[in-house]
Amino acid sequence: MDDRSLLIDASDIRTLLRRIGPDALMDDLTTRLERAIRQYDPATAQVPARTGLQYESPEWGLLEWMPAHFGEQGTTSKLVAYHPANPVGYGMPSIVSTISMFDTRSGHLLALMDGTLLTAMRTGAASAVASRVLALPESRTLGVIGCGTQAVTQVHGLSRVFEIGKVIVYDVRDEVAATFAERTAFLDSPVTSVGRNSLGDLLARADILCTCTSVAPGAGPVCPEFEGKPHLHVNAVGSDFPGKLELPAAVLRRSLVCPDFREQAIVEGECQQLEQAAIGPDLVTLVQNADSYARSRSSPTVFDSTGWALEDHVVAVMVFEYARELGLGRSITLECLPADPLDPYSLLASPALAAALRPASASEITSAGSPRGTTERSDPAR
Amino acid sequence: MDDRSLLIDASDIRTLLRRIGPDALMDDLTTRLERAIRQYDPATAQVPARTGLQYESPEWGLLEWMPAHFGEQGTTSKLVAYHPANPVGYGMPSIVSTISMFDTRSGHLLALMDGTLLTAMRTGAASAVASRVLALPESRTLGVIGCGTQAVTQVHGLSRVFEIGKVIVYDVRDEVAATFAERTAFLDSPVTSVGRNSLGDLLARADILCTCTSVAPGAGPVCPEFEGKPHLHVNAVGSDFPGKLELPAAVLRRSLVCPDFREQAIVEGECQQLEQAAIGPDLVTLVQNADSYARSRSSPTVFDSTGWALEDHVVAVMVFEYARELGLGRSITLECLPADPLDPYSLLASPALAAALRPASASEITSAGSPRGTTERSDPAR
Repeated sequence: MDDRSLLIDASDIRTLLRRIGPDALMDDLTTRLERAIRQYDPATAQVPARTGLQYESPEWGLLEWMPAHFGEQGTTSKLVAYHPANPVGYGMPSIVSTISMFDTRSGHLLALMDGTLLTAMRTGAASAVASRVLALPESRTLGVIGCGTQAVTQVHGLSRVFEIGKVIVYDVRDEVAATFAERTAFLDSPVTSVGRNSLGDLLARADILCTCTSVAPGAGPVCPEFEGKPHLHVNAVGSDFPGKLELPAAVLRRSLVCPDFREQAIVEGECQQLEQAAIGPDLVTLVQNADSYARSRSSPTVFDSTGWALEDHVVAVMVFEYARELGLGRSITLECLPADPLDPYSLLASPALAAALRPASASEITSAGSPRGTTERSDPAR
Repeated sequence: MDDRSLLIDASDIRTLLRRIGPDALMDDLTTRLERAIRQYDPATAQVPARTGLQYESPEWGLLEWMPAHFGEQGTTSKLVAYHPANPVGYGMPSIVSTISMFDTRSGHLLALMDGTLLTAMRTGAASAVASRVLALPESRTLGVIGCGTQAVTQVHGLSRVFEIGKVIVYDVRDEVAATFAERTAFLDSPVTSVGRNSLGDLLARADILCTCTSVAPGAGPVCPEFEGKPHLHVNAVGSDFPGKLELPAAVLRRSLVCPDFREQAIVEGECQQLEQAAIGPDLVTLVQNADSYARSRSSPTVFDSTGWALEDHVVAVMVFEYARELGLGRSITLECLPADPLDPYSLLASPALAAALRPASASEITSAGSPRGTTERSDPAR
């Protein structure tokens, strides 16, 4: 029995990013995610729709869990909190999370790591995977609506699989749009921010559009009705809660809408706005049959990205493997796994303490004859 | 923004047990749990039924989450795995878990701790709380069926609120029953283990009975039909999964059956065997109206203990408070909370690295005039 868990903390993730580089990590993640989706078999995996708590006080927030089980390949669970007031109110990202990895045989915690950066990266990688199937390969102009954390990794992920020549961005807060270029300065693509008045221009010029806002449930859709290019592909990332919507229904109705995970998207995603029959293939169907969906590239398409626990599993396994390879993380003994699995208090069993806890030592009881039946057990000390 | 989390590991829990003592900790926990139940108000708390994954391969197991939200008083979530093959197959307890505590305002992880020992202790404390309402105060003889980890803390918890004069125990594995006295040697009560043939004698003599087995779903009930003392109180602890049953239906039908949490017990607990109308008051109703239920002590009663997330919340808060008081645990920075909450990669922003990542430094861009609109943002370095 190994009672240790690998703790991969923020400084380990920072070291990993520095050693491997954000681009190489994003590339590796996109490759792994595409492979995992291609190999996904619901007969051996269990990835249920997430469930959680929603509360209004002291701030509007969500706490959710996102488990994923892949038999002997392991089980992971992300605990994720969504608090849209965080960036302005607490100087924190709106999505904060940790990911636990378990040994499926015993339930032992193998590793624990940050999920905050990893969620942003895997969401970018997921859009890259979906866009590679659904968007025109020669897409050049990327529109972005909502310029927070997720927007950075959307642009990053897409820039690794498309030759992005121009990024046009909009945010409800002008200064957030205006500073987006700084946050994506590691890219080569020029970024133009536009105000509300030029949103129509952004929507008209985009080959690929990413929506990734914190719009409140009931307050959407964020986008007005718009025409868009005939081949427009949208990665709709922000809609991930009942009533939270970014795209107008008319855009969805004229597009092939592909949810990451249908069961979840009909409850939380843009698919809330569609009849079941109007929903297109899910991400697994899309990737496993990419050639037959390539014809969709010349007509409007939407990737309804609610965030799928398989993506968290893939990024966690990637980080775990890098950590072992690079010697990152540290071993902790978090779980109380006592010497005797049937005795929780045997955790205390140092010789001195065992003597203090027990009225007489095991050998004394044995030699004196025990009224409690302890002589029935062989004494390992003898 | 405080990005630190308090890691309370197995050695901290061990130190806590040594410094405070198992008895004083169990007493404090029982007091806190009773108070929390008395004050429980569903209008301000959210404690949903747990949900989880169940799998057959590579071992039969469960992974579940148990969240509990108490507004400004905080939010906790336990991730708990149940693998009944653990003790024999892997030398580990069958129930292994960790508990996360969150700052409800932001979703920041305040603390992370073992939940393995704490689950066993809180389950013992819950039986103590329920038994104090439902069992005869002069109960002396405790029967135990199933002699694993949970049995140790059942006996411990009950011994703190009743003058237990005799403990009679049975386990399907004779050697587990025979060694139970050793595992509870810290108690003053003499323990007698009996074999299958004397199970009827155990059931006839008990004033209080605790069932805490790992019986497989569909294989129960564990107990045969039996008469029992007129005032018998049963703490039915093991039934916590659909089809997993310990008590015969006839015993339930003649008893006042009180679930810890009705919504969960009708799915997972002994309450599976009862019509809705035949289910008695839940633990909250019981504790909040203890005086009026005292009359039930002279007739058969059952506490259907499936394990309630409120109990995990209470034990986690207790351990967190002790850790702060005693200086236990250590500060970790697990979450990647970057300097700029809108830029996940600002995690990387050491001056040297920022320069390497960005083609030109912010001040250079500003002084040269930026084509990307960065001059619209005031430069904090100036």
